Amino acid sequence: MIYLDYNATTPVFPEVKEAILPYFNEVFGNPSCIYSLGKEAKEAIEKAREQVAHFIHASPEEIIFTSGGTESNNTVFKGVLWALREKGRHVITTQIEHPSVVNPAMFMTELGFKISFVPPDTEGIVRAEEVEKAIKKGTVLISIIHANNETGVIQPIEDIAKIAREKGIFFHTDAAQSLGKIPVDVERLGVDLLTIAGHKLYAPKGIGALYMRKGTPFTPLIHGSGQENNHRAGTENVAFIVALGKACDLLKEKLEKKENLRLAKLRDKLWQSLCEKLEVVRFGHSKHCLPNTVFVGFKGLNGWEVLKKVPEICASTGAACQSGKAGISNILLAMGVAPSVAKGAVRFSLGYPTTEKEIDEAVNLITERLKSV
Amino acid sequence: MIYLDYNATTPVFPEVKEAILPYFNEVFGNPSCIYSLGKEAKEAIEKAREQVAHFIHASPEEIIFTSGGTESNNTVFKGVLWALREKGRHVITTQIEHPSVVNPAMFMTELGFKISFVPPDTEGIVRAEEVEKAIKKGTVLISIIHANNETGVIQPIEDIAKIAREKGIFFHTDAAQSLGKIPVDVERLGVDLLTIAGHKLYAPKGIGALYMRKGTPFTPLIHGSGQENNHRAGTENVAFIVALGKACDLLKEKLEKKENLRLAKLRDKLWQSLCEKLEVVRFGHSKHCLPNTVFVGFKGLNGWEVLKKVPEICASTGAACQSGKAGISNILLAMGVAPSVAKGAVRFSLGYPTTEKEIDEAVNLITERLKSV
Repeated sequence: MIYLDYNATTPVFPEVKEAILPYFNEVFGNPSCIYSLGKEAKEAIEKAREQVAHFIHASPEEIIFTSGGTESNNTVFKGVLWALREKGRHVITTQIEHPSVVNPAMFMTELGFKISFVPPDTEGIVRAEEVEKAIKKGTVLISIIHANNETGVIQPIEDIAKIAREKGIFFHTDAAQSLGKIPVDVERLGVDLLTIAGHKLYAPKGIGALYMRKGTPFTPLIHGSGQENNHRAGTENVAFIVALGKACDLLKEKLEKKENLRLAKLRDKLWQSLCEKLEVVRFGHSKHCLPNTVFVGFKGLNGWEVLKKVPEICASTGAACQSGKAGISNILLAMGVAPSVAKGAVRFSLGYPTTEKEIDEAVNLITERLKSV
Repeated sequence: MIYLDYNATTPVFPEVKEAILPYFNEVFGNPSCIYSLGKEAKEAIEKAREQVAHFIHASPEEIIFTSGGTESNNTVFKGVLWALREKGRHVITTQIEHPSVVNPAMFMTELGFKISFVPPDTEGIVRAEEVEKAIKKGTVLISIIHANNETGVIQPIEDIAKIAREKGIFFHTDAAQSLGKIPVDVERLGVDLLTIAGHKLYAPKGIGALYMRKGTPFTPLIHGSGQENNHRAGTENVAFIVALGKACDLLKEKLEKKENLRLAKLRDKLWQSLCEKLEVVRFGHSKHCLPNTVFVGFKGLNGWEVLKKVPEICASTGAACQSGKAGISNILLAMGVAPSVAKGAVRFSLGYPTTEKEIDEAVNLITERLKSV
């Protein structure tokens, strides 16, 4: 099996797994309890909060742990928007967002909010000037994905966030797909809110975080006891919070050692090899792209047919959640790709465990099976 | 250390921990993906859904996995109530609920809902006739805790749910504290919605479920991709879902073997021994009580002072989340207990790993340290 679907989800780093284990039967106390078993759990959470904060250049008190990226995005669209409702009820987002942004945004229309969806250009980039044009009286939030999950295209967040700040509009970016693959610095990006998804960065499924700049208006999505400084109720998932902190530490190291550039080279090799041997197109801007991702269109074929011919390779026709369906990527349609071309899309996404041997084998398998088509 | 705070949280059963491990690095696929690594994860989720359903006599499709009891309660108070908003905006709950019910209920008043809080009697029981009196035109939901987390008192859910059903009102019970300690059967109880919290039943913190009877109106709390049959978005916490299923299977066995009665005997021994040697009162109905819980009032003392004198024992002055505070239990005040008596409260809650030796030692420690007061 050659796993090339790291954008769908990642395995847990072995060091992260080791870090988790003591929190099941040893340090199992409720972090709200005052005895040492509780205090130890509480301390583990606070250490992880520092690790996550450090990774994105935030302060620990700006990190809220959640159950995942989807919950973080819902917290922004329901909690932050609800807190802003007196100020205005217009939100700008894009046509290339994940469903965990689109669907809570649509829900908020039931509460009187209006949503503008800005399109990307043909290379998958949302232009700052297009976003600026969508701003109107009552715009309280702009939410733009940092790097798209399908194309891997990195958006001009700094430019757009600057415009937002100048106009007093809060700015959110969904960094589920970018964090751990490229450096992410909330100060440099200039964002007020940033979504983190553990299972995209070698921590387990079921944990995430939301960066929220001090002073951002807020209503919790999940009310209850006072956990997470009254921002997110529920007994904390201590084991997976520890995991997320550890994963951030490990990824910080990997980025410092530029291991992401090794992935970029392998990704480029994969793309070049397919180019040489098959009729393929590449979707999205090839420079402003995550180092691990290539979204390939196989001409005259259906993406899911391609994948059926190489069952040894795990990859997707688009976002993980749509991969079971034969439908065409909405992201590609928004970019103006013809349906007849978009239907041939296959996303290959590499991860830190990916080896050159795997890439060579993948290329051989694909070219061998497709040349007979 | 003698851990007698199983109502605050439980360690993970060793068999549950074993069941979790393969889902970090081996079966790590995204359950939405069609290749075998994804399918295996999906199958593990569906097996766990059957285990949870079987434990409470529900159908698998009536189980929604969440990040915990607090999220489940929020889902009821926000998602179900929102779906019912055209039918009416009045909710009945009680003065002895967990904050994860009280606080989402209070949030819904911002959306025009009215909440009635029915008081318990002096023994901590919410009387069916009191609930019935609170019903009015526009009552769409009644939510009553199954067993209170502090007193352990079991509420007359069957009687109240029957009244609710006769009047076409949806009925929810928060069974976070009862499940695994006494048999829970959604058909027998007659409830439409039931909250499950993993970390109270020897699964990890960060997983829970909501039982929702077929046909219950619903809006998701967390929108996004179509996971959980469009009821709860977000990539599934596969490892902890498997854990919850396994824990339910193990607890089913324990209840069948009546291991909960062993706990009741130990709990009674603890209470009798304290009675013989110290000036104590017991809060809440002693018969309609969880087998593992005793809420003791030490006369003339503060609960947290008692706990400070026996640091070897992990117990709480009330709900876990309040245990760091010197405040007086709202539950006891609602029961009409005088503040001067309520302040002496200490909750002891036993678990399946509790031994007779631990109880004997706990009694010795407490009586030895307190007789010098």
